Amino acid sequence: MPELRKDPATERWVIISHERGKRPILPSEEQAPAPPRACPFCPGHESKTPPAILSYCGADGAWQLRVVPSKHPVLQVEAAADRRGQGPYDLMNGLGAHEVVIESPQHHGDLDAMGPEQVERVLLAWRDRSLDLRRDLRMRYILAFRNHGTASGAGAEHPHSQIIATPVVPKRVAEKLAGARAWYALKERCLFCDILRYEAEVRERVVAESEHFVVLAPFAAGFPFELAIYPKQHAHDFGALERPASLDLARLLRESLRRLKRALGGPAYSIILHTAPLAEPCQQEFHWHLEIIPLLTQMAGFEQGSGFYINPTAPEEAAQYLRQVEL
Amino acid sequence: MPELRKDPATERWVIISHERGKRPILPSEEQAPAPPRACPFCPGHESKTPPAILSYCGADGAWQLRVVPSKHPVLQVEAAADRRGQGPYDLMNGLGAHEVVIESPQHHGDLDAMGPEQVERVLLAWRDRSLDLRRDLRMRYILAFRNHGTASGAGAEHPHSQIIATPVVPKRVAEKLAGARAWYALKERCLFCDILRYEAEVRERVVAESEHFVVLAPFAAGFPFELAIYPKQHAHDFGALERPASLDLARLLRESLRRLKRALGGPAYSIILHTAPLAEPCQQEFHWHLEIIPLLTQMAGFEQGSGFYINPTAPEEAAQYLRQVEL
Repeated sequence: MPELRKDPATERWVIISHERGKRPILPSEEQAPAPPRACPFCPGHESKTPPAILSYCGADGAWQLRVVPSKHPVLQVEAAADRRGQGPYDLMNGLGAHEVVIESPQHHGDLDAMGPEQVERVLLAWRDRSLDLRRDLRMRYILAFRNHGTASGAGAEHPHSQIIATPVVPKRVAEKLAGARAWYALKERCLFCDILRYEAEVRERVVAESEHFVVLAPFAAGFPFELAIYPKQHAHDFGALERPASLDLARLLRESLRRLKRALGGPAYSIILHTAPLAEPCQQEFHWHLEIIPLLTQMAGFEQGSGFYINPTAPEEAAQYLRQVEL
Repeated sequence: MPELRKDPATERWVIISHERGKRPILPSEEQAPAPPRACPFCPGHESKTPPAILSYCGADGAWQLRVVPSKHPVLQVEAAADRRGQGPYDLMNGLGAHEVVIESPQHHGDLDAMGPEQVERVLLAWRDRSLDLRRDLRMRYILAFRNHGTASGAGAEHPHSQIIATPVVPKRVAEKLAGARAWYALKERCLFCDILRYEAEVRERVVAESEHFVVLAPFAAGFPFELAIYPKQHAHDFGALERPASLDLARLLRESLRRLKRALGGPAYSIILHTAPLAEPCQQEFHWHLEIIPLLTQMAGFEQGSGFYINPTAPEEAAQYLRQVEL
C-alpha cells in the first residue's frame, strides 16, 4: 500500500510508493521505452492495459483516445485514507486514483504533430475524467499532467498524459490559492485577471494569443522558456471548459509547443494543469491555467533543496524569441 | 544587473540573471568541463580567478583551499536593493554575493576521496564566509551548497562548492522555519529535536551517526536516497560550528557520500545547508542541517510544477540499504 507522508516542517505531502518495487530502485533499473511492436498503448494491444475507463471513438468505431487505470498506480482508490500520526509525523494511506490517457492511436508524434482536434480530445479527456473523479468526495485535487521526453521523467514513448486524483492539495496549487486569496482579500479582484490585464497592456511577455486564451512567459519564471496558458475570461475550474473554447485552447497549446520545438530543438518538457482544488470555495479567487516547463538546464538538487531558483533567461527575452520563431 | 523577482501567487523569489548572456541561453551552449591543463581552479592558475577572499594554507605555504568571487555572479554586492513594484509584481535589484569555494588543489577526486581534514576545511570555509558575509546587514540568508556531477548542474569538474548571500530567505528555508515555529508555539520544543529523539528510538531511518551528528533518511523524503545530517544537540546556526565537532561532521559527511557512492555507483548529488535565516529570532525553533539529494531519477517538471513528489524508495529501505553497504 503506498503511503502519503507529510513533511512536518514544510507541510509538503509526498507519495512513498514502495509497492512499485520491493527493493530500492537503482538507476540502472529504469525502463527503456518499448518498441512500437511491444507498445501496450498501440492499437491491437488493448489487452495489455487494464480495461478502458473512457474511450473516444471515430465514425469508423476505432478508438481515437483511451483512458486506462495505471498498471503501476502511485495511489489506489480502494484504500481508506486512515489519517494517523506516527511519533512526530503525519501520514495516511495512498488513497487516490492514477490513470493514463493514451492520447492517440499513433505511436510516434508528440502533441505538436497531432491535428488540433486530437489535441482537443486530450483536453476533453482531462476534463471528463476530472468531472468523474471528483464525484469521490474524499478527493481534494485532480492533477492532470504530461511529461514529454526522457529528461521529463516520461516512461513510455507513445504519446500519453496522466491523471492523479489525490486526497491532498498539491503544495504549489495550495500556495497559489493562498496567494490569490490574500490578493482578493486586499483588492476584491482576481490576482490572475490583474496579471493578464497588465501583461496585455505591456505586451513584453505575451508569446501568443487566441480568441479565448493567452500564452505568457511568467514574470518570475523559475525556468528558461517556461510558459503559462490562461483563459482570458475569469474561470476557476478547468472542469467547466466547453467547446468551442476547447478547440481554441488545443490550437494554442499546439502552437506553443511548436514554438518551443522550433526555438529549442525539441526539448523535454512537462505540462501541468493548475485548477481550483475541490471542496475549496475559490470561484472568485482562482483562475486555472496550464504550466509548460521545458527542461533545458540540468535540474539541480540545489533548486529543489533550497526553493531558490536561478533563471538565466529573462522571460521577456524568451517571449520575444518565441514570438519571432517561424512556424 | 540581475533582478530578484517575486512570483505574486506563490511568493517565491527567483533570480533572473540575464546579465549572464545577452541572448536566451540554449541547451547547446552549456559549458563542457575544462581539462585540468586549462582549469582555472588548479594551482598555478590563480590569476584566472578573481583574487581570493579567503585562503587556508598548509605549513609549506601552499594553499589548501581558496574562496574567490564568482566570475559569473548571479547576485552582486555593489547593488542597492531598490525594492519596487511593477504593475502587479514586486522586484528588486540582484543584491547579494556569489562566491566559489575551491575545495582542494587536486583537480580530481570528490569530497568522499579527500582526507577528513580537507573536508573539514570545506565546512570551515562555509562557516567563515558565512560569518563574514552576514556583517552586511542587508543580507537575509547565506546559502552554501555543492553540486556534484553533471545531472546536479555542476559546471566545473574541479571540486568546488558555492556560497550565495541573498537579501531574501530561500523559500524552503522560510517554510521550514514557519513549520518549526508553529511546532514550537504548540509544544515549546524544537521540532527537529523531537524528530531526532523519535528517530533515535525507532532507528529505522538512521543511516549512520557519530559523536555529535546523525544521518537520517527523512520520513517524508521527496527523493530516493535523500539524506539529512543533523547535530544531535540543538543548534540553530551553522555559523557556530566549532572544532572538534567540525572534524566529526566532516568524517560523517564523507562516510555518507561513500555510502551513497557504493550503493548507487557515484550518482550526481547536491548538498544544501539549511541554517537559521539572519535577523530572524529563531534560536529555540530552528535546528541547522545538511540536505544531501542524490539525483537518481530524471527530475520531472511535474514535481517542480505541482510541488507534489513521488518517491519510489521508502526512506526506511534506503536507510537499511545504506547501512549495509561495505565501506
